[in-house]
Amino acid sequence: MAHITIIGTGNMGQAIAGLVTRGGHTVQLLGETDAATQVSGDIVILAVPFPAISDVLSARGASLAGRIVVDITNPLDFATFDSLTVPADSSATAEIASALPESRVLKAFNTTFAATLAAGTVGPLTTTVLIAGDDAEAKAALAQVVTDGGLAAIDAGGLRRARELEAQGFLQITLAAAEKISWTGGFGVAA
Amino acid sequence: MAHITIIGTGNMGQAIAGLVTRGGHTVQLLGETDAATQVSGDIVILAVPFPAISDVLSARGASLAGRIVVDITNPLDFATFDSLTVPADSSATAEIASALPESRVLKAFNTTFAATLAAGTVGPLTTTVLIAGDDAEAKAALAQVVTDGGLAAIDAGGLRRARELEAQGFLQITLAAAEKISWTGGFGVAA
Repeated sequence: MAHITIIGTGNMGQAIAGLVTRGGHTVQLLGETDAATQVSGDIVILAVPFPAISDVLSARGASLAGRIVVDITNPLDFATFDSLTVPADSSATAEIASALPESRVLKAFNTTFAATLAAGTVGPLTTTVLIAGDDAEAKAALAQVVTDGGLAAIDAGGLRRARELEAQGFLQITLAAAEKISWTGGFGVAA
Repeated sequence: MAHITIIGTGNMGQAIAGLVTRGGHTVQLLGETDAATQVSGDIVILAVPFPAISDVLSARGASLAGRIVVDITNPLDFATFDSLTVPADSSATAEIASALPESRVLKAFNTTFAATLAAGTVGPLTTTVLIAGDDAEAKAALAQVVTDGGLAAIDAGGLRRARELEAQGFLQITLAAAEKISWTGGFGVAA
């Protein structure tokens, strides 16, 4: 059984908490600004908007050493909806990994809307969580939690692939915002 | 009825030709090196690998003026399978549009494997062609051909979104090459 800390109680944090507990794992759910409570999870999921990440890392960075840290952000420029706020040749995850050299940083959950994590489906397909990172053991640990909760997981490659996952997450959000798809649908994966 | 020229007779060119004719439109299918035959289509689909694009544009650029030109490429570095060969803040489509200022350049078909264009399905979902470009009328004309052939089409935004479509196409190819998904599956769209 894994013990997972989720920082952030928004719709994504809640949906991931539900997934974790459905699989029989335990959750510590912490508010974004609750820096007083010590993180207890082996896996720590940063379920806060990208602009809030730097404050979380400032407050908790040292306590994340040795842990698996999961970045779920889509660093959109919400003023324009036309670009990401990270450099084109980088990613939010790369920046977080750079700030947390003693953590095992993964990208996941940024290509699945909260509703599809809760429902377990994207249209007729089982919801698939794409996971990128350079630590195979860390990816396998997260994938186990995902599949225990009834979803599918795919190892999408190294940390460099976070860039493509963020591009896909960005594209999916723009399609939903433009009402080309719904927030309960999106990109599914047919194996 | 639209008349479509497809340059390139590989698996993508053939699959797109099948889609076009299923919808009752007509096809001129030209070999990549057949520069002697004049292009006759209102819509011209460049179904050649990205490294062959510059030769096609050199040979045919002038004759593409005024036409809708569709770029379907995924400009992967096939030596490493770890990056694209276009700059991170650009796209193959942006480069083609820059080379063809008098054409109406679109990105499409790069996120759908040939098998899913032929089958009409990605797993249980109808295959969806994502189309990006700055000319709404051109996008609508291509979308009509796609939907007449029995597939779904989504306007994915302006030409700048080609970058995200290429990221998604790249990711999908790496997943298939790593046998995480099959070449008959991939990313489907649940509206």
